[in-house]
Amino acid sequence: MTHMAIIGGGIIGSSWALVFARAGLQVKVFARHETVRASLHERIGVMAERAQAIRPDVPVAEILKRISLVDEIGAAVTGAGFVQESLEEKIEVKREVFAVLDRLTPEDAIIGSSTSSFGVSSFADGVKGRHRCIVAHPAAVPHLIPVVEVVPAVFTALETVETTFELMKAMGQSPVLVRREQPGFVMNRLQGALLTEMFRVIEDGLMSPEDVDKLISDGFGLRWAFLGPLEGIDLNAPGGIADYLKRYGFMFDDLARQRGAKGPVVTKSVIATLNDAMRGELPIEQLEDKRAWRDQRMARLRALRDEMGPFLGTEPV
Amino acid sequence: MTHMAIIGGGIIGSSWALVFARAGLQVKVFARHETVRASLHERIGVMAERAQAIRPDVPVAEILKRISLVDEIGAAVTGAGFVQESLEEKIEVKREVFAVLDRLTPEDAIIGSSTSSFGVSSFADGVKGRHRCIVAHPAAVPHLIPVVEVVPAVFTALETVETTFELMKAMGQSPVLVRREQPGFVMNRLQGALLTEMFRVIEDGLMSPEDVDKLISDGFGLRWAFLGPLEGIDLNAPGGIADYLKRYGFMFDDLARQRGAKGPVVTKSVIATLNDAMRGELPIEQLEDKRAWRDQRMARLRALRDEMGPFLGTEPV
Repeated sequence: MTHMAIIGGGIIGSSWALVFARAGLQVKVFARHETVRASLHERIGVMAERAQAIRPDVPVAEILKRISLVDEIGAAVTGAGFVQESLEEKIEVKREVFAVLDRLTPEDAIIGSSTSSFGVSSFADGVKGRHRCIVAHPAAVPHLIPVVEVVPAVFTALETVETTFELMKAMGQSPVLVRREQPGFVMNRLQGALLTEMFRVIEDGLMSPEDVDKLISDGFGLRWAFLGPLEGIDLNAPGGIADYLKRYGFMFDDLARQRGAKGPVVTKSVIATLNDAMRGELPIEQLEDKRAWRDQRMARLRALRDEMGPFLGTEPV
Repeated sequence: MTHMAIIGGGIIGSSWALVFARAGLQVKVFARHETVRASLHERIGVMAERAQAIRPDVPVAEILKRISLVDEIGAAVTGAGFVQESLEEKIEVKREVFAVLDRLTPEDAIIGSSTSSFGVSSFADGVKGRHRCIVAHPAAVPHLIPVVEVVPAVFTALETVETTFELMKAMGQSPVLVRREQPGFVMNRLQGALLTEMFRVIEDGLMSPEDVDKLISDGFGLRWAFLGPLEGIDLNAPGGIADYLKRYGFMFDDLARQRGAKGPVVTKSVIATLNDAMRGELPIEQLEDKRAWRDQRMARLRALRDEMGPFLGTEPV
């Protein structure tokens, strides 16, 4: 593609610019405000320095050279292959800018939105090129955390979905598909479920906030840095995930019931779906080799943490 | 202390033996079955090899020399400073062995249990030395994952709690205090809350199991390898966690309500408790320095993952 256009120079827009420029693309960033434009290169430079371990072969100066700034949307998107809108989280703002983008972009350009809450059908249903409009919701922030929720509307063309996936993968990101539009998508629901349980533990006076955090940062977080929670439990029973859920599934059902759920959550169909998915990727006779793979990585992560040390506070000047 | 006694040579007992021997203690493991005893050194040797990055300065052969095997409980616990019971998860088994341990151990030895579900009051309330009985519930497995839930009963002496904390810290573990006995404690409740939400997403057909896993392993897991989820959101708003919850708390309340909860979960008292805890550790003017600390670690973790590579399956022989 000729170049990538980013609409908005805030935290997410800047991080996206870094993602694409680091991977070798030319990037044009549109930012309305003079103050945002004036600081953009410096801000991206700081982000790139802190993240240099990810691509030590790409000098920060090279990355910055690939990022140019414009003060008109048309100048950013003319000739662009892909446009990523990253403005503030207001539906009127999205609606207005998507109408403009649809007019000014090349007809075959894809128009993505970084929205974390609105389905694309709620702000782009009226535009002529809606088949090329899609949500590509990044984690905060994409130059460090690769996962991207790709959320098509029913009117989004399959080709748009496929091209978005290919571009994200080529950039070193990890796209995942949300099959139906739903407010809040999935990423934030997962974090929300965990945080909500933590709030309850703290409200009950059962554990201090520092300690409940350690259950993750000195606990599951070490495993989840390499393995999803489902892959994780798949390795923790001799017969894989189906075996695990037959042994311990009742605990999840009990917990859900205590929280107000009406029926069980570990249903036969969930077990079957999970078993098919896990065994399709990993034959049962390879579980032990994958455990060795996991253990070596967790040990190296422990060493990395020891080497880099805890946060000791700001150095006195 | 003279030595550490481990009761049981299964996965958890072996991992505990490795934890204590790696930190320099002499360890005696009691295992009833001949086959368990026959394989113990070899199994711990494999675990130690895979985990060597954690303590590369301690040769595996040295670790194994510190671990001896006995076929009688008395031989394991006589003269022991700390005993860690790691038998199967049956309450009758725990009750029986704690009665024996109370008789055979030195009067000032602490008797810990690795149980993941029973409060110590449910199986040790009848023993004479119950003030020295406590739950020390490890993650699976403690030689890789440092967090340990310490759960005293109302009859457990404060000194027992303190000594358990000191020992665990000296061993390189990360003890956390569960202030009241409760079935399942807290660690598994947190994992359960996250997994339950994942099961719902899959049952709804909203996302594939592989993709929902990636939301953690290519997403939040990279952050939670260094920061608890609460510390994590504390860094994600200009004014820290109180600011974050004022902006986004409604999302967690909405989610909890959809799942059947009656009231809000982000209460004023939770916000106040969290704000006090976070600001007590990290003054607001140091948030940006801690963000830099976080970003550098996440970047190095990305590099580590790239260096070590994905699981490619078992090598054909």
